[in-house]
Amino acid sequence: MKTRFSLQTLIGCENIRAPVSEVLKYCNSRRLAVVPQGGNTGLVGGSVPVFDEVIINVGSMKQVISFDKVSGVLVCEAGCILENLVSFLDNQGFIMPLDLGAKGSCQIGGNVSTNAGGLRLVRYGSLHGTVLGIEAVLANGDVLDMLGTLRKDNTGYDLKHLFIGSEGSLGIVTKISILTPPKLSSVNLAFLACKDYSSCQKLLFEAKRYLGEILSAFEFLDNESLNLALNHLEGVRNPLPPAMHNFYVLIETTGSDESYDKEKLEAFLLRSMEGGLISDGVIAQDINQASSFWHIREGVPEALMKAGAVYKYDLSLPVETMYNLVEEMRTKLGNSAKVIGYGHLGDGNLHLNISTPQYDDAILAQIEPFVYEWTSKQRGSISAEHGLGLMKANKIFYSKSHETVQLMASIKKLMDPHGILNPYKVLPHSIVSYS
Amino acid sequence: MKTRFSLQTLIGCENIRAPVSEVLKYCNSRRLAVVPQGGNTGLVGGSVPVFDEVIINVGSMKQVISFDKVSGVLVCEAGCILENLVSFLDNQGFIMPLDLGAKGSCQIGGNVSTNAGGLRLVRYGSLHGTVLGIEAVLANGDVLDMLGTLRKDNTGYDLKHLFIGSEGSLGIVTKISILTPPKLSSVNLAFLACKDYSSCQKLLFEAKRYLGEILSAFEFLDNESLNLALNHLEGVRNPLPPAMHNFYVLIETTGSDESYDKEKLEAFLLRSMEGGLISDGVIAQDINQASSFWHIREGVPEALMKAGAVYKYDLSLPVETMYNLVEEMRTKLGNSAKVIGYGHLGDGNLHLNISTPQYDDAILAQIEPFVYEWTSKQRGSISAEHGLGLMKANKIFYSKSHETVQLMASIKKLMDPHGILNPYKVLPHSIVSYS
Repeated sequence: MKTRFSLQTLIGCENIRAPVSEVLKYCNSRRLAVVPQGGNTGLVGGSVPVFDEVIINVGSMKQVISFDKVSGVLVCEAGCILENLVSFLDNQGFIMPLDLGAKGSCQIGGNVSTNAGGLRLVRYGSLHGTVLGIEAVLANGDVLDMLGTLRKDNTGYDLKHLFIGSEGSLGIVTKISILTPPKLSSVNLAFLACKDYSSCQKLLFEAKRYLGEILSAFEFLDNESLNLALNHLEGVRNPLPPAMHNFYVLIETTGSDESYDKEKLEAFLLRSMEGGLISDGVIAQDINQASSFWHIREGVPEALMKAGAVYKYDLSLPVETMYNLVEEMRTKLGNSAKVIGYGHLGDGNLHLNISTPQYDDAILAQIEPFVYEWTSKQRGSISAEHGLGLMKANKIFYSKSHETVQLMASIKKLMDPHGILNPYKVLPHSIVSYS
Repeated sequence: MKTRFSLQTLIGCENIRAPVSEVLKYCNSRRLAVVPQGGNTGLVGGSVPVFDEVIINVGSMKQVISFDKVSGVLVCEAGCILENLVSFLDNQGFIMPLDLGAKGSCQIGGNVSTNAGGLRLVRYGSLHGTVLGIEAVLANGDVLDMLGTLRKDNTGYDLKHLFIGSEGSLGIVTKISILTPPKLSSVNLAFLACKDYSSCQKLLFEAKRYLGEILSAFEFLDNESLNLALNHLEGVRNPLPPAMHNFYVLIETTGSDESYDKEKLEAFLLRSMEGGLISDGVIAQDINQASSFWHIREGVPEALMKAGAVYKYDLSLPVETMYNLVEEMRTKLGNSAKVIGYGHLGDGNLHLNISTPQYDDAILAQIEPFVYEWTSKQRGSISAEHGLGLMKANKIFYSKSHETVQLMASIKKLMDPHGILNPYKVLPHSIVSYS
C-alpha cells in the first residue's frame, strides 16, 4: 500500500511540461505509483487507479504547438481533445487520421498511449504509421525528446513505438507530432443491407478493389445491433424500412471530386446489387442524413449500456471466420442473452457484445474463457483496439507468446525499475513483480 | 578478435528456421559476433563484417508462406527478393507497399531490418505501418513469434517495431507478415520542369490537395542530377529537350479509373502550367516511356558511381529549407566538386551527393561535419531511409538526444548482453561497450 500524495502545488504550475518530469522524479524516488490519465474514456480500466495511485491528468496540456501546411504535420500537447484538433485542422483544410466515437472527450495523448484505432484506420492506417514523433517522460523523470516531424528518420531504434499502445506503463506521453491528411472535399456514405455474412465479406473484397483509393470506412452491424439502436437510442430510425435484414454495412468514400466519386459509388452499388451482394441500400443525401447513419453505428455501445448489463469483447479475427464466433456464442447462450456483433469489418475488428438484464456469473462462465480460447485458436487478438488495461492484463497469453511477453516484462523492468507507472495494467501480474 | 567459425553444416539444413536459432545460440554461448545479411544492397555498411564476424545470410529463406486475397496480407520468409514478391503479388492483383531501386536484389528481411523507404512511401506510408508481424530470433537463439496478420492488435507492447529499422542489432528477422495494397489499374507518370525550387515546393502542396487520393509518388531532381544521368547512363535521353531547366519533378498517380485519372492529372498540369509552377512537361504515353522516366530518377546513383568519387548523404529536412543545403554546399565547394540534389520531395527526403574526380580528405573536411550540423540545426535526420550502419553509427547524436540514445543502448544491452549481433553498427562506439 502506498501513501496518497497531494500534487496540487506542482500541477498548478503554468508550464506543465517540467512538472510531469518533476512529479515523476518525486514519485519515483519515493516509490509512489502513478496513473497517467487523459480523457478517461478507455474501456478496459487502463486510466483509473486500482488502489492508491497518484493520478497524473494531462488535461491542462492542451496547446497546439505548430502546424505546417506544406507537410501536414501537427505538433501538439498530449491533453488536446481529439475533437478540438479536428476543428483546428478543419480550418486549415486538413483532418485527423483517426476518428472515434469518444472524440468529444478523449485526448490525443491517450489515443497515442492506447494506440486507438477507430473508423478511419482502413484508409489512413494505425498510429504507428501516422505518429511521427513524441515527447515522453520516463519513470525517473527524464524527458525523452523524440518529437521529430519527419516522415523518414532511420537514426537508431525508433523508440517512440514503445510508447504507442503501452498504456502509460513505460512513460507518460506529453507531446505528439502527427501526420494529418488533407481534407478532401467529397465524402459519401451508404447504408446497405446484406442477406448474409458471406455477402458482407464479398462486398468488402469488391469495395477494396473497385472503390480503391476513395474507400475510407467499411463498417458492419448485424440485425441485433440495429434493433438495439432502434429500441434504445433517441431519434434513431431504420434507414431501410420496413423489413429488417440480417446484416448492415456502412461504406464511406472520401475523395477530391464530388460528382466523380458519387458516380463511382453509385456504379459500385448498382453492380453489387445486381450481383446479389446487397439486398437494399441508400446513399446519404446530405450531411444530416450521413450523421444519422453514423449515429446508428457509433451509438451501439450507448444502446447496449441502456439495455442492461453488457459483456464487451474487442477482437481481431480473420474476416472469413469472424462472424462464426457470434453464431457459436448464440448457440451456447440460447435465450439467456442477446449476442450482437458489429465493428470495423475493413480492419478485421469485431466488437462482440453480450447483453443480459443483469450481470450473472453463470453467464460469464459460459462466455469466458471460451471467447478468448476461440480467438486464440484463430491467431486473433483478444484486444484489437481497446488495449489490455486492468481488465485484460492477465489475458495477454491468448494473443502473445510467453517469450514475447517475457521480453515486454524485461523492457518494463528496464524502463520502470520500481514499477511506479500504471501498475497492475497491461502485463500479467504473474510476470511483473517488484520488490 | 574473435575466431572465425564455419557454419556450413548448420546452414546446409533444409529447414533453415531452426538453424538461425541454433546458430545464434551457439554463437552467443561462445561469444562469436555475427552479421545478419540479406541482399547486401545497403549503403552504410550495415550488412558487412568489420573484423571477423560470422555472416548469417538468410538468402535461402525465400518461401512465400501464405497470401490472403481478402485481407491482402502476405506472409513470407525474410530472404524473399523484393522483386520476386512484386511478381508473385502481381499475379494475385496486389502490389508491395514499398518500391526501391535495389528491388532486383534486396530482400524483404533486409528491407524490414533497415526500414527501407523508397518511392511509394508518400502513398502507402512506412513499414512501421504496413508490416503487421514478424518472427525474429534473439541473440540467445530464442524465437519470438510475433507473426500476426492482424491490422489491429493492442495486446501489450508492440515489440515488432524494435526490429524494424534496427539493422539486425537486436535480433534477426526471419519471417514477415505485410499488408499489401490492391493493384490499381491506372498508373500515370509525368516528367515536369520547374524554374526554381520554390515552384517544386508549391507544386507538391497543390498536388497533395488536388490529386489527393491518386498521388503515388512525388520525386525531384535538379539540373545537375539530370546532366549526370544524361552523361553517364546508357540510352538516357532528355525527356524535355532542347533546353535544360533548373529542376525536374516526377509525379506518379495510381488509381482505379484510367480515363478519369488521366483527365485529372492533365487538368492539374494545365492549371499548374497556367499558374507558372511548371515550365514544361510530358506525360508518359506508354509503359516504356514511363520506365525511361523512372530510369533517369532511379539511375542517378549509378551515374554518380560512374562519374568518380561520391560523398553520399540521405537527409530528412523540412521541405521549405531542404534545397538551401545544396546551394550552401555549392557555395562552399566552388569548382572543386559537383553538388547534386534529388530525392523524395513528397517525404521531405533529400539525397545530397557530392561528386569529385577522386576521394580527397580536404573536400571531406569541408563537407563534414558541416552537413550534419546543418541538418541537426533544422531538426532533420542525418539518415532518412538508409540507416546508420557502420558508417554513420557515431553520427547519431546529430539527430537523437543523449537520453534517447542512452535508452537505445540499454535496450541493446538487455536484448543482446554479449553484443554479438552486428557489432560496431547503429549505436555509437562511445556508448556501447561490452566485457
